[in-house]
Amino acid sequence: MKQLTNAPDQIVNEALAGMALAHPDLLRVHQSPNYLVRASGPTLGKVALISGGGSGHEPMHGGFVGHGMLDAACPGEIFTSPTPDQIQEASTVAHGGKGVLHIVKNYTGDVLNFQMAAELLHEDGLEVQAVIIDDDVAVKDSLYTAGRRGVGATVLAEKICGGVAEAGASLGVLANLCTAVNGSARSMGLALAPCTNPETGQSSFTLGHDEIEFGIGIHGEPGRQRIKIERADTLTEMLMLPILDDLPFKKGDEVLLFVDGLGATPLLELYIVYRAAETLATKHGLKVSRRLVGPYMTSLDMAGVAITVLRLNDEMRKGWDAPVCTPALRWGM
Amino acid sequence: MKQLTNAPDQIVNEALAGMALAHPDLLRVHQSPNYLVRASGPTLGKVALISGGGSGHEPMHGGFVGHGMLDAACPGEIFTSPTPDQIQEASTVAHGGKGVLHIVKNYTGDVLNFQMAAELLHEDGLEVQAVIIDDDVAVKDSLYTAGRRGVGATVLAEKICGGVAEAGASLGVLANLCTAVNGSARSMGLALAPCTNPETGQSSFTLGHDEIEFGIGIHGEPGRQRIKIERADTLTEMLMLPILDDLPFKKGDEVLLFVDGLGATPLLELYIVYRAAETLATKHGLKVSRRLVGPYMTSLDMAGVAITVLRLNDEMRKGWDAPVCTPALRWGM
Repeated sequence: MKQLTNAPDQIVNEALAGMALAHPDLLRVHQSPNYLVRASGPTLGKVALISGGGSGHEPMHGGFVGHGMLDAACPGEIFTSPTPDQIQEASTVAHGGKGVLHIVKNYTGDVLNFQMAAELLHEDGLEVQAVIIDDDVAVKDSLYTAGRRGVGATVLAEKICGGVAEAGASLGVLANLCTAVNGSARSMGLALAPCTNPETGQSSFTLGHDEIEFGIGIHGEPGRQRIKIERADTLTEMLMLPILDDLPFKKGDEVLLFVDGLGATPLLELYIVYRAAETLATKHGLKVSRRLVGPYMTSLDMAGVAITVLRLNDEMRKGWDAPVCTPALRWGM
Repeated sequence: MKQLTNAPDQIVNEALAGMALAHPDLLRVHQSPNYLVRASGPTLGKVALISGGGSGHEPMHGGFVGHGMLDAACPGEIFTSPTPDQIQEASTVAHGGKGVLHIVKNYTGDVLNFQMAAELLHEDGLEVQAVIIDDDVAVKDSLYTAGRRGVGATVLAEKICGGVAEAGASLGVLANLCTAVNGSARSMGLALAPCTNPETGQSSFTLGHDEIEFGIGIHGEPGRQRIKIERADTLTEMLMLPILDDLPFKKGDEVLLFVDGLGATPLLELYIVYRAAETLATKHGLKVSRRLVGPYMTSLDMAGVAITVLRLNDEMRKGWDAPVCTPALRWGM
């Protein structure tokens, strides 16, 4: 597989250097250990929101650093958890005096390393709370995960909590809000083609010419089953029904509908899936009032799509609608 | 090749329906003939900016409709020019009483059909000017093109002219500005892997496992040569040098640097290329003051990258920095 890289062990470092050059107004990038913080420095009197995880899911999380979203992001190597020292230093640098919220996707390495970082930060006298995101209904337990995997709800939690954090909410309020977003969101995805790990040159898995992986994980972990490809409307329904059953969502619920591209899937196809997903949500009596369509949590060059449905309440709506100014999500400023 | 579609002949229609559902605040979609206009209706007293072209390059152009950019976009079928009646109706609907600027990429079908539409619009009494974009230095004449192909400068021209148009500029001023942007911009791209036409299921071309197409066109048209893949920094230099030589750009020029993803290439790799491109531009004495990195003019699921360098002047800078509110580009509002 061909890639635009120089040396396998420099991919993350060089991409971070590129982000620093491309977004000097928004981001400051630190290397060794690797993290991204806002160019404006820590926001005094505001809770700092920090996330991180393996690289290869861009724009998550580095592309979400900026006003109204994250204060810092800690990228690990490709599909590899960030280390405790990265998280500790990023949290310390981004801390604005009101405590730190860690938003952590439920993968064993991420959870452990954020936990170790939180202990180190506690010893330093910083107040830290962590919320684990585990919204993927596809499988219970998986490669790298005990329990459900954290996927699309992470993007929504970072935006919603980020918006509310700018308005001065306390660490306790934000941790509760983040927990509520995770508790009200459900996701599932599928892959038409695997991704290639640029550090190893290996495909994450292999699929027959007419096969898809239904319930795929964002590192190529197996999902529920391998099935023959179907029409987009059928596949969308196969993703939506387990999502809607799981919460369960009820007639009259107001929701945010997020159709995420896993990397290589053209926007044209994402909108075809979006059409089917919103049509189905409406048929089930849901009121779709907020939307997001695009590649926001990717898996390198994987072809596929994931859907997240979030039941909104007033506070979440306020956080979602608040101004945001990051490389990947920007509105109202 | 697998895709998220229902029926090959409904891909564009269903994607447009998805865009309408996903962006009700920004877009209104008309089908038969297909076009997208601003949800707010025509802006009275403003020149209407209209573009269009074959589908498969999303977010271009439909994702660029909105305040500060296009007033309407006319998507053809996949890699197929929009028809004169589409362009005529979109122009009529979007017209705000101050004339219409057509921004046309230099492909034979696009040029002819926009020309025919302009004649029909003239008969209807509308003032129309057209600017042809032909910024691709890769080849002179090509499949579908006499002269150079229109690529990345299209995105920049639509944003810059769109910003200046909101401030009330006349049709003549905007046509001159658009011509100046095209005249001051140069581009070139390369492909690591072909795209698949979802209407036919065919790959646009085939490449050996270590080959790339250098100077690729956005429909998979051949470029300058087929070469062995090199390191990202080497490939970036191979794209940048012909671009910088062609205008030519001079020491001290202030430029906008745009690194465009062709579809399947991860953001991680685009930032690696961006790093090399800005480093090289700086080494050549250019002052990079504006940047864009991401998949803005794609070729379905093609893997690859294209670079555009635009020499900025005050008016272009003003247009670029102006607020914009479209599905794909948004800032300042």
